[in-house]
Amino acid sequence: MARERIVTLLTDFGWAGPYVAEMKGVLLTLAPRVTLVDISHNIGPGDILAGAFVLRQVVPNFPPDTVHCVVVDPSVGTERRMLAARYGSQIIVFPDNGVISLVDESMPLEEIAVVADPRLFLGEGEKSTFQGRDVVAPVAARLAEGFPVHRLGPRPDTFKLLELPETRVGDDGEIAGEVLYVDDFGNLISNITARMVGEALGGVLGMEVLCDGRAVGKVVAAYGFVKAGEPLALVNSMDVLEVAVNKGRACDRFEAGVGAKISVRKPAGEGGP
Amino acid sequence: MARERIVTLLTDFGWAGPYVAEMKGVLLTLAPRVTLVDISHNIGPGDILAGAFVLRQVVPNFPPDTVHCVVVDPSVGTERRMLAARYGSQIIVFPDNGVISLVDESMPLEEIAVVADPRLFLGEGEKSTFQGRDVVAPVAARLAEGFPVHRLGPRPDTFKLLELPETRVGDDGEIAGEVLYVDDFGNLISNITARMVGEALGGVLGMEVLCDGRAVGKVVAAYGFVKAGEPLALVNSMDVLEVAVNKGRACDRFEAGVGAKISVRKPAGEGGP
Amino acid sequence: MARERIVTLLTDFGWAGPYVAEMKGVLLTLAPRVTLVDISHNIGPGDILAGAFVLRQVVPNFPPDTVHCVVVDPSVGTERRMLAARYGSQIIVFPDNGVISLVDESMPLEEIAVVADPRLFLGEGEKSTFQGRDVVAPVAARLAEGFPVHRLGPRPDTFKLLELPETRVGDDGEIAGEVLYVDDFGNLISNITARMVGEALGGVLGMEVLCDGRAVGKVVAAYGFVKAGEPLALVNSMDVLEVAVNKGRACDRFEAGVGAKISVRKPAGEGGP
Repeated sequence: MARERIVTLLTDFGWAGPYVAEMKGVLLTLAPRVTLVDISHNIGPGDILAGAFVLRQVVPNFPPDTVHCVVVDPSVGTERRMLAARYGSQIIVFPDNGVISLVDESMPLEEIAVVADPRLFLGEGEKSTFQGRDVVAPVAARLAEGFPVHRLGPRPDTFKLLELPETRVGDDGEIAGEVLYVDDFGNLISNITARMVGEALGGVLGMEVLCDGRAVGKVVAAYGFVKAGEPLALVNSMDVLEVAVNKGRACDRFEAGVGAKISVRKPAGEGGP
Repeated sequence: MARERIVTLLTDFGWAGPYVAEMKGVLLTLAPRVTLVDISHNIGPGDILAGAFVLRQVVPNFPPDTVHCVVVDPSVGTERRMLAARYGSQIIVFPDNGVISLVDESMPLEEIAVVADPRLFLGEGEKSTFQGRDVVAPVAARLAEGFPVHRLGPRPDTFKLLELPETRVGDDGEIAGEVLYVDDFGNLISNITARMVGEALGGVLGMEVLCDGRAVGKVVAAYGFVKAGEPLALVNSMDVLEVAVNKGRACDRFEAGVGAKISVRKPAGEGGP
Repeated sequence: MARERIVTLLTDFGWAGPYVAEMKGVLLTLAPRVTLVDISHNIGPGDILAGAFVLRQVVPNFPPDTVHCVVVDPSVGTERRMLAARYGSQIIVFPDNGVISLVDESMPLEEIAVVADPRLFLGEGEKSTFQGRDVVAPVAARLAEGFPVHRLGPRPDTFKLLELPETRVGDDGEIAGEVLYVDDFGNLISNITARMVGEALGGVLGMEVLCDGRAVGKVVAAYGFVKAGEPLALVNSMDVLEVAVNKGRACDRFEAGVGAKISVRKPAGEGGP
């Protein structure tokens, strides 16, 4: 292959031990010309939803034909299959445990296959307790060298998707959603999109936000619009509603995490005819 | 461009979430041939002084024409501008919040510009709540491909520098300074240079050091010169005075952090005529 | 040199400060075409055994002629020498403090030298308090460009190896070993190999395991063979016996760490004639 491709790694392995580097060694041995990029290795152990969230945010930013390795896999060594799929221009290798759910919502699925051909694996392959090294890495190396997804194995009849929390719009236009992810800054990122708010309430800036029933304040355009230490809501870089504290941690301020209730409504006094 | 350049990333984003990888995806999309290097993503949230310190240490070690992306930016989304500058052979893109202060002290400023041309930005550009991805990354990609700093925008009349703690030399030659940074090992790194001590006291080894008034001991040549668990002072790899504990954490031992007072003097009995 | 080589970094520097990036800057300045790979920078400060363990796991997975930089070095600045060696197809630069011990057990030593030629060093070289940047990085850069190990300096008469815990097989075939490493998941990784168990007990699956005298259960094939929260033992990806908790942390469950006693025996009722 003439072009050098990118292979990314997204795991819950942590940075201390040998696991991440074992995968990298295998990748660089089998596909010497790839560029490796760490997405994150600090997904909480087995936290499939957090892996799904980070994957959705990151994937659309990469060049075409990037191969993403996802190993957030609390059920390694069970019947759970390993899959490979092409979403838009991106290729993803991932365990069939729902970690693909948010990508599946937002990018077109072009092809998908069960990673099944044992000739592609290292060591004990599917029976390995370290499928990241023995299955995902060698398969990703082949994909990065141009091996087509559909030749990895059969197309699955179905694959697992998470039951994601839904948003609801009340009769009064109030939108109810949930916190989907808490980032490194302690920001509470919801599943309520800017578009949803705009359609239900006719605008976003100035709308009133609550977190688990406690007042956050009105939606502003940036963190700096409130004083340091004060809470705020904004439409973040992902085009979803986020609850934050300027130079502080919203997760501490509101004692809230994944699953906390977020609601958005017109400010009092503006709803009447 | 014939030569492959290096782009580094220095942020307070942490390693868990998607933000670092989003920047990397943008960089590799717009400048496919760059080599990415992580400097640190564990600068304390919004800790401009720590960012400034790490930046000063790292920048002089890189090859000419390296582009450094600095996103330690507690005021994102306010009037704060994004700047790009060439210091010596190095190019740095950074928020105008003082994070450049220590580089500015130690390397010659060759050119500087406000990052202003919106055609270089992604998404909402300067109005984005994620300027690392939408402003810094695309601008750094262009710079890595040879785009000149001065074409990014106008030269600023002035730019922000931190008010850094000063060192003082007393009548008796005693030098008073402060801890500027605490490293991963808990070492207390001061703003007192070896040269300062040499000029004021006629030598460095054997001088007496205090931390917040408590005796540290005499300046030695290496950690191993005192027993495990014992405190020491030395001239570190940055040519500044550092208070450490051999195989221990000085920040715990002296209950000290950034801003703690460090003083250096001739040992008692050696000061007389 | 025609081929681009890989240089890895394994340190106890942590990810926050400037030290890792200073090494990278030196490496990329002196050997612009190398590919850098982070193995880990979160080895516990001065934890030579943990460094030795991670090194053993990672090294065999890398392509031939990879150069590994190891800076887990609690005695920097003392008489301790820096060594470089070729084990199999891999080159390693490391302090003479025993961190090579587990590689030395498992891969053939081809050549070894004291890193002695001061013309290869930066700054103060061997007297530097930051030998990672001033000795290891420039030497690794030269090795990556094809400089031969034996020209770095004299062959040492001897070099330091750790006194590793031994395994014992009792008269009844019971095997006694120890925990050698605790990984990011809290798994307790022992020094008992699958082969040892097979030879002493005639098989591995179904054997009974104890941790510090407390029952772990029988050896199973994968984490998923027990319920979430339940302990298990298995032969891990390193072919050694590991004590784990499915979706939990064995180190917490058994209040055990490095040095905890692990024993393996035939299950009661199966040992008789």
